[in-house]
Amino acid sequence: MIKYPNGKIYDPETKQIQTSKAQKTRTKSKEEVSLSAANRGMDLERDINLSCDFYREKDLALIYKRPTPINVVKVDYSKGAKIINAYYEEQSTTDYNGVYKGRYLDFEAKMTKSKTSFPLNNITKHQITHLKKVILQNGIAFFIIAFSTYDKIYLLDASFVIDFYEHGERKSIPYEVIKQEGIEIKRGYYPRLYFLEAIDTQYFSK
Amino acid sequence: MIKYPNGKIYDPETKQIQTSKAQKTRTKSKEEVSLSAANRGMDLERDINLSCDFYREKDLALIYKRPTPINVVKVDYSKGAKIINAYYEEQSTTDYNGVYKGRYLDFEAKMTKSKTSFPLNNITKHQITHLKKVILQNGIAFFIIAFSTYDKIYLLDASFVIDFYEHGERKSIPYEVIKQEGIEIKRGYYPRLYFLEAIDTQYFSK
Repeated sequence: MIKYPNGKIYDPETKQIQTSKAQKTRTKSKEEVSLSAANRGMDLERDINLSCDFYREKDLALIYKRPTPINVVKVDYSKGAKIINAYYEEQSTTDYNGVYKGRYLDFEAKMTKSKTSFPLNNITKHQITHLKKVILQNGIAFFIIAFSTYDKIYLLDASFVIDFYEHGERKSIPYEVIKQEGIEIKRGYYPRLYFLEAIDTQYFSK
Repeated sequence: MIKYPNGKIYDPETKQIQTSKAQKTRTKSKEEVSLSAANRGMDLERDINLSCDFYREKDLALIYKRPTPINVVKVDYSKGAKIINAYYEEQSTTDYNGVYKGRYLDFEAKMTKSKTSFPLNNITKHQITHLKKVILQNGIAFFIIAFSTYDKIYLLDASFVIDFYEHGERKSIPYEVIKQEGIEIKRGYYPRLYFLEAIDTQYFSK
């Protein structure tokens, strides 16, 4: 990605220069944009969602965040179907799925403040089971793992994580291992995260 | 599918005979099972969901129903994150998506009581836009259309429906056209609907 002095940005994905109008519609303020990721605090979910929006608008990929499942207990129909009692449920699948170049994509995004390793205890058994089923159907399954301290984000193939989860001696994957086995996801403006590039490198370049 | 007198069922998908135990866990009562679809009234969504469960358990396909999106307005954290004000939102995508043989699947299920045609007015513009994007990404996109009067269910490729939606002179697709252009989805017990067979015929046999 090339940033021009006039604020315009060259996007290698679309091979287009983004106009400042596009910038305006996609961001809340110039100040927000100019703050570095480290300064404003990493918001992995927002960055992935904005990237999905970008890829969807440009017809490069179709990826959606799955809504957090909600168990609806009571609906008040006298007020136009107002839900008055409900609870969030644990996600039994992953956060994101979609389609890219005909292939099914399925991934979970996780962030850690750790400087040394990615702890596996925030991945549920349900998610592992789900990702194994994705792989069995020849879908593309991976994790996006962010180390907020370093402001580094990696794509890590799910089969590697599953293997670690089920057979690893440690309950975490060392940062050095992720650096070696993962594909780094570069940051940009549009998209915020170049994760299609990382997907290309991992799954479409062989 | 072959039904044995002892209640056991031969499943051509898995080439296995279902035990009565499996039957018990998958159905609420024997009475319910023995009623014909016409008698008990067609419940398309339930039948698709049960079929997805079956295919998922047998590792034949991984398909989930997307939850109806809910706009959460207010959460009471004093009561353990109880949602006390929320509304259902219109689904901007389709009801189901998943993966089968590596390909991305995306479909919407609709039922009509009409004897002559499938009305297009219960398909939203958002859904058409979504399905066009699925096709653009080389995903498999279709409709499952049920005519409850005849107890007949068809798979109809989304591109055909989109063409009718956007360029057709009528605001409905005649039943005779669907019979000719669609693939009939056979009914069974496990699964309730053999829609993978229909998908194979439509998308994997050429």
